[in-house]
Amino acid sequence: MARTRFSDARPAVDSRLRVRYKDTDQMGIAHHSNHVVWFEIGRTDLCRVAGLEYRRIEELGWVLVVTEIGCRYRGPFRYDDEVLIRTQVEEGNPRLIRFCYQLIEAGSGEVRAEGFSSHVWVDKATRRPRAATPEVFAKFAQFLG
Amino acid sequence: MARTRFSDARPAVDSRLRVRYKDTDQMGIAHHSNHVVWFEIGRTDLCRVAGLEYRRIEELGWVLVVTEIGCRYRGPFRYDDEVLIRTQVEEGNPRLIRFCYQLIEAGSGEVRAEGFSSHVWVDKATRRPRAATPEVFAKFAQFLG
Amino acid sequence: MARTRFSDARPAVDSRLRVRYKDTDQMGIAHHSNHVVWFEIGRTDLCRVAGLEYRRIEELGWVLVVTEIGCRYRGPFRYDDEVLIRTQVEEGNPRLIRFCYQLIEAGSGEVRAEGFSSHVWVDKATRRPRAATPEVFAKFAQFLG
Amino acid sequence: MARTRFSDARPAVDSRLRVRYKDTDQMGIAHHSNHVVWFEIGRTDLCRVAGLEYRRIEELGWVLVVTEIGCRYRGPFRYDDEVLIRTQVEEGNPRLIRFCYQLIEAGSGEVRAEGFSSHVWVDKATRRPRAATPEVFAKFAQFLG
Repeated sequence: MARTRFSDARPAVDSRLRVRYKDTDQMGIAHHSNHVVWFEIGRTDLCRVAGLEYRRIEELGWVLVVTEIGCRYRGPFRYDDEVLIRTQVEEGNPRLIRFCYQLIEAGSGEVRAEGFSSHVWVDKATRRPRAATPEVFAKFAQFLG
Repeated sequence: MARTRFSDARPAVDSRLRVRYKDTDQMGIAHHSNHVVWFEIGRTDLCRVAGLEYRRIEELGWVLVVTEIGCRYRGPFRYDDEVLIRTQVEEGNPRLIRFCYQLIEAGSGEVRAEGFSSHVWVDKATRRPRAATPEVFAKFAQFLG
Repeated sequence: MARTRFSDARPAVDSRLRVRYKDTDQMGIAHHSNHVVWFEIGRTDLCRVAGLEYRRIEELGWVLVVTEIGCRYRGPFRYDDEVLIRTQVEEGNPRLIRFCYQLIEAGSGEVRAEGFSSHVWVDKATRRPRAATPEVFAKFAQFLG
Repeated sequence: MARTRFSDARPAVDSRLRVRYKDTDQMGIAHHSNHVVWFEIGRTDLCRVAGLEYRRIEELGWVLVVTEIGCRYRGPFRYDDEVLIRTQVEEGNPRLIRFCYQLIEAGSGEVRAEGFSSHVWVDKATRRPRAATPEVFAKFAQFLG
């Protein structure tokens, strides 16, 4: 995860949710697999703010296939905590895009986890790589620092 | 749920799984939404035993759409407990099928939950009701008492 | 489910969420087990509006154990749909409480699912039934019609 | 993830499961967050084979808190595919333990994903780091190459 850098120099999109009872485990904290789902909510919201809803991306014939994810856990989230998800486009080009994320406990402002996800642009029908067109990629390029 | 009757007079298909850590919640027990997923595993295995894997049903152009579910909880499952899922076809015809389930803690033999799910046969492409053909329905009819 | 009646004569608490990509299945719709989780979000919000957050209930030494759930599915939710959860206290006393729910697709206003959940008041430490005190129960009684 | 090396020189523990319908998403493949849950199943089984069930670890007063996870996705899993989880102890000492995983489609033998999880030994009551005793750690040391 050495390359992952959430940077104050880049624009970020914020999402908020509350930890669900379903998200907890018998350790009394949100299970660590939820963070991966929360990242997905963050990038869905970034797509929306970018002006290209993810469901529109699929309608246009692409899927963004996940090729790698990583998460570092710094502290737990508990039931009913408000989670602030901060999402950035860390790097991207018409073939690859990499998002990075901070998960912040909104009450305290503490960063409780950080992570990234890497994706390739894939043709929805053929499931083969297909580059994003300039006008599609431009939606995300505005988020590069 | 008055109509749901798991009956020793009908054949049942057994599935086994262990409660995952992810399935637990901060009450220290398996979250009650898992039971609905376990029912689905039970009917997937019943389809397999019936000689018509559920994935084959979708390849043939149907989906089995859920129209109702219900579950009564008699006792908790805990992390790493072995769950025995017993699945029956409670009633069925070429348009509707209703499965019923017992969830048993395998160590003690105790029934910890009972439930059902009702489904309609739907055309995968049009999403309109489409009756099962006699040869498809026959796979399930063998499980009626 | 004959007894479940969502009634315009009773107060309801509204919650809103969006269907997550994670919630979809290969049928292209939100998997039917999510509805059970959405019900839980509805009653969590009802507790908050009632002035007694569910996490406070556990701090006070109770857990609300689920004894039965049911859901009727009238139409699918799709990725990124906004779900309006409407939650009511259908019946209750210091030993038992039953919530009922409507799940509405916010864009169209259509009721896509209805359901209920029944619970008993249980002592968190002993896991034995323990009646709610009058002041705790009063928080919920205000929602009875 | 540069440090993660699944190695044929170390003992591995194998687990098997089938992709559940619930695990699929509207892309028609197992959602990428499931892999994190499958890793957990792998290390649960490794603990069992090691002679120290994870539930026993918690009874003894520890929890293994996740500090980092990573996963590389090489190809999709589909509904009803059999997943072979291969789990190793990549490195470990009485304070830290790192597992690595391969996820193999059992029918073809193809490695579809690889990943790791890092953990610290934490006191269940105080939630502070507490080193594993030699006899506890020995259970895992036998898996180091």
